[in-house]
Amino acid sequence: MTPLEELRHSCSHVLATAVLRLFPTTQLDIGPPTDQGFYYDFDTDHRFTLEDLAAIEAEMKKVIKENQRFERVEVTREEAVKMIKEFGQETYKLGRLDDIPEGEEISFYRNGEFLDLCAGTHVNYTKKIKAFKLLSIAGAYHRGDESNKQLQRIYGTAFATKDELEEHLTMLEEAKKRDHRKIGKEMGLFTFDSEHVGPGLPLWLPKGSVLVEELEALAKETEFEAGYDRVRTPHLAKEKMYQISGHLPYYEDSMYPPVEIVEDEGGEKVKYYLKAMNCPHHHRVYASQPKSYRDLPVRYAEYGTCYRYEQSGELMGLMRVRSLQMNDAHIYCTESQFEDEFRGVNDMYLKYFKLFGIKKFLMRFSTHDPERLGKKFVNEPALWKKTEDMVRKVLEDSGIDYVEVPNEAAFYGPKIDIQVWSAIGREFTLATNQVDFAVPGQFGLTYTTSENQQETPLCIHRAPLGTHERFIGFLIEHFAGNFPAWLAPEQVRLLPVNDSYQEFANELQKQMRDHKIRCSVDIHSDKLGAKIRRAELDRIPFMIVIGQKEAESRRVSVRSRISKKLEGDHSVEDFISKLLQDIANRALPDVFLEG
Amino acid sequence: MTPLEELRHSCSHVLATAVLRLFPTTQLDIGPPTDQGFYYDFDTDHRFTLEDLAAIEAEMKKVIKENQRFERVEVTREEAVKMIKEFGQETYKLGRLDDIPEGEEISFYRNGEFLDLCAGTHVNYTKKIKAFKLLSIAGAYHRGDESNKQLQRIYGTAFATKDELEEHLTMLEEAKKRDHRKIGKEMGLFTFDSEHVGPGLPLWLPKGSVLVEELEALAKETEFEAGYDRVRTPHLAKEKMYQISGHLPYYEDSMYPPVEIVEDEGGEKVKYYLKAMNCPHHHRVYASQPKSYRDLPVRYAEYGTCYRYEQSGELMGLMRVRSLQMNDAHIYCTESQFEDEFRGVNDMYLKYFKLFGIKKFLMRFSTHDPERLGKKFVNEPALWKKTEDMVRKVLEDSGIDYVEVPNEAAFYGPKIDIQVWSAIGREFTLATNQVDFAVPGQFGLTYTTSENQQETPLCIHRAPLGTHERFIGFLIEHFAGNFPAWLAPEQVRLLPVNDSYQEFANELQKQMRDHKIRCSVDIHSDKLGAKIRRAELDRIPFMIVIGQKEAESRRVSVRSRISKKLEGDHSVEDFISKLLQDIANRALPDVFLEG
Repeated sequence: MTPLEELRHSCSHVLATAVLRLFPTTQLDIGPPTDQGFYYDFDTDHRFTLEDLAAIEAEMKKVIKENQRFERVEVTREEAVKMIKEFGQETYKLGRLDDIPEGEEISFYRNGEFLDLCAGTHVNYTKKIKAFKLLSIAGAYHRGDESNKQLQRIYGTAFATKDELEEHLTMLEEAKKRDHRKIGKEMGLFTFDSEHVGPGLPLWLPKGSVLVEELEALAKETEFEAGYDRVRTPHLAKEKMYQISGHLPYYEDSMYPPVEIVEDEGGEKVKYYLKAMNCPHHHRVYASQPKSYRDLPVRYAEYGTCYRYEQSGELMGLMRVRSLQMNDAHIYCTESQFEDEFRGVNDMYLKYFKLFGIKKFLMRFSTHDPERLGKKFVNEPALWKKTEDMVRKVLEDSGIDYVEVPNEAAFYGPKIDIQVWSAIGREFTLATNQVDFAVPGQFGLTYTTSENQQETPLCIHRAPLGTHERFIGFLIEHFAGNFPAWLAPEQVRLLPVNDSYQEFANELQKQMRDHKIRCSVDIHSDKLGAKIRRAELDRIPFMIVIGQKEAESRRVSVRSRISKKLEGDHSVEDFISKLLQDIANRALPDVFLEG
Repeated sequence: MTPLEELRHSCSHVLATAVLRLFPTTQLDIGPPTDQGFYYDFDTDHRFTLEDLAAIEAEMKKVIKENQRFERVEVTREEAVKMIKEFGQETYKLGRLDDIPEGEEISFYRNGEFLDLCAGTHVNYTKKIKAFKLLSIAGAYHRGDESNKQLQRIYGTAFATKDELEEHLTMLEEAKKRDHRKIGKEMGLFTFDSEHVGPGLPLWLPKGSVLVEELEALAKETEFEAGYDRVRTPHLAKEKMYQISGHLPYYEDSMYPPVEIVEDEGGEKVKYYLKAMNCPHHHRVYASQPKSYRDLPVRYAEYGTCYRYEQSGELMGLMRVRSLQMNDAHIYCTESQFEDEFRGVNDMYLKYFKLFGIKKFLMRFSTHDPERLGKKFVNEPALWKKTEDMVRKVLEDSGIDYVEVPNEAAFYGPKIDIQVWSAIGREFTLATNQVDFAVPGQFGLTYTTSENQQETPLCIHRAPLGTHERFIGFLIEHFAGNFPAWLAPEQVRLLPVNDSYQEFANELQKQMRDHKIRCSVDIHSDKLGAKIRRAELDRIPFMIVIGQKEAESRRVSVRSRISKKLEGDHSVEDFISKLLQDIANRALPDVFLEG
């Protein structure tokens, strides 16, 4: 365990110590550290409330002040059973004891009156815990299995210093304010309709569809420049396709069940599956026309919608959904083209990060383990070495932040997971970039070399903008809904001070819409204050009040949430031309340009 | 029967007369006139060949020359049975006799030695047939039922004059040359993969995807101007949705079978259906946020992909498919807004027809039958009258060619089927435009009126560009693959006379692609003649040979299939700017501008 994990793990024991003092009949399950803090799962008839959390925190502080020593006790299995029973924790701990394989060491950790079956490790004394906070209560099934009893999980976090804790709590607070589900609802971006359409299947409302369309326009433009061709493929395919690709049976649980059709009179039933990824369709597009070395690299791009059957309990807003519109593309290339192609993909990621003001990102470069060739990894040692070297070289050359993680590659080649941090410092895994040695061969894809031989191309799978669902979820938090002008669902709102300026507002609106500016007029007849509040809730980047002065002078006074440059007094034409420039440049909001 | 139908019907009898002379053991089924000509279905062990058609035609000419009289004979059912048996045509004709309801007149038509159970009518003498032609042989199941025997159908056509026949045959010949399946293959626009993906599910290759993307860009631009909002909805929904919409059970045969999912642990199976139309999803988008009269009209547009389960025997190229990407939109409006909205839709159709050089079109305006209110048509006499009057007025005002067809409206409102004729005069039904009184109510859609009442909006379903599949199929024939510059998958091809000009060609290509011009270089090392032939087969609108002169002068000599104006000698910059203008204007090829 890292020092921070040790600290958090110790804090979870202190939490359990406090809970047993306050609710002595509680049965304990487990309490591990996590990426973000720690938790402990409790079984008690008492239903924990937020008030309880405060009381538990107070009791934890006492335990810390008592400066109890964490003491490791190694015992035999028989002794362990006896200790668990004596401590009155038979319900779950005996089962957890059974999980420990024969021959492995069995240990307890003791602090003060508290005793827990635990492999460790821990800090020495409870006073080492200097900054902690309990955060929330959630239901959690014992062993994550819905058929078991639901326990109460208390989440908390701990840091080495009060400042770090404070910073983390501020980030969480901000993340709550920026929750994409909350902002999505306020701005009218998307909705779910579990009853009629189905859970996990977002419906993009007009404003959310603007985000979708603008991202697609960006991708299409970027991909045209980078020499990609677009393709369009159906959302389903026959069972046979997914047998060749290997999705069946290995990935079947994540796919929707099949549609079964009797294709011909008296024929057998044929199974069709909704596509869970676009690659097999693209492979078949590649195969549909013979290819020569002159045609390579072939780059097929499609914003294809895939369907994955996530368990309903796993669904979460746009972050975990069942329909995914993916910024997908597959590059088929020769070995000698690979390095350039991979660099091109990499550059595209960097370009996008810059465009969206993503300042912190990390590429996790997962490589193979030579010991497991032919088992976990396809048995092509030379190709592994060559492509991994090339990938590493590109990463080094471009000075990108990356970590290398051995033994985590895909079966068919090295992969890169791209992690990004939103403006408030929360981490998201957005996209994966993979090299594929194996599947093109399974699909029998070839090209004719200059020596008239048939060779199998390499394939790069890439999706820099991930899926609309996850990427827009990320962007909502990242921008707190204050999107750059080019992305903003509604770019300008005109607020007539009263109904008599409606006509002039309509005229201005038309003028802007003729330039493809997404401009609307607040046609409600309530007070100006109400109109302004509505525009703020809708996070409209540019707001223009329309009254006597504006109608006479044909000048406007602009309020902007995102751009100082565009604020204040302008002639109408001047404002339009500046805004169009901002849009054409896909300029970031001011706050992303500082520092 | 119209005079032309009478003529064709008589010609089908003459065909049967000739067949019985040449193949006396043949059993006859039926031989009606059609829109395009006539056919007769025959049952004989002899397999008709094209040579047979010539012999049959010769025999038909003899029958015509004999100037046989068509004589009507009215008989009792018993006499009819006797006559059929005496004429030796028991196999199918006795069954056809059974189809005639009791009490209805039974008649035969006799010409020379030939006799046929037939309601008529016919021309007086065979010599009236002055211009006919047998066209093809096809298999056809008796009564169209796959479980019956397959008969041989001989198709032919007949016209009042030789000139008209000639014109029709030329059109058919041209249609064969322009067959979208043939040109689609030559140009590499789309492909099918029945084995892996499934029949009727087109895969759009890169060049076909350009057509798809350009049409969508056109629709999005046009719809933005017309005040539509875009939405995005999933490709499936729960059974419940299609029960409310009425698609289940009435339309179930045309839908893919459901995907069945156990949504929750221990729960019941839930059926999901692939969407066969977008309206129910749009209705749910409408319902997701409350609407007031200020919000109306609401116009939701989506190029949504729908799935319809057509029988595999019915599938035909892009014309009859199972996946349909539809230029769909739904307009929700008040009664008082209806006329303007309907006019707006109509104008959009006309704008598109002009843009694509569609000169001949017809709107078939299907209205209700007051006698069948509450049965075939929703029982809203006032609304029927009002909307039909408004639709009629808009059609009249705009001087559009239309015919009114009583008793063919949809259940929920009047509809307009739009028929267009391609450049060679072949007819296509491209799109339907419907008014809907009923379904918004079934979905409980409402808006708050200015008097704070809840009212149900009217809904207009419209899809001027139909589906990508059918519309592109039509455009391929219409343009014979010689698409206007803005649509052309590849706009410019550079043909270096030899490898030493490759580099200059690449430089020019880059210059054009920087302007988003779809330009490629022929990188094959074969002769110029071969490069030109390839460009012609690919129907590239602008071809530029690159040699010494071009590299030195930076001027180009352009060959164009579509535009005289752009042909000949230009500076590179001049050509680019003219081409860009042509693209921006979405200009038609010259041949569509003449006459």
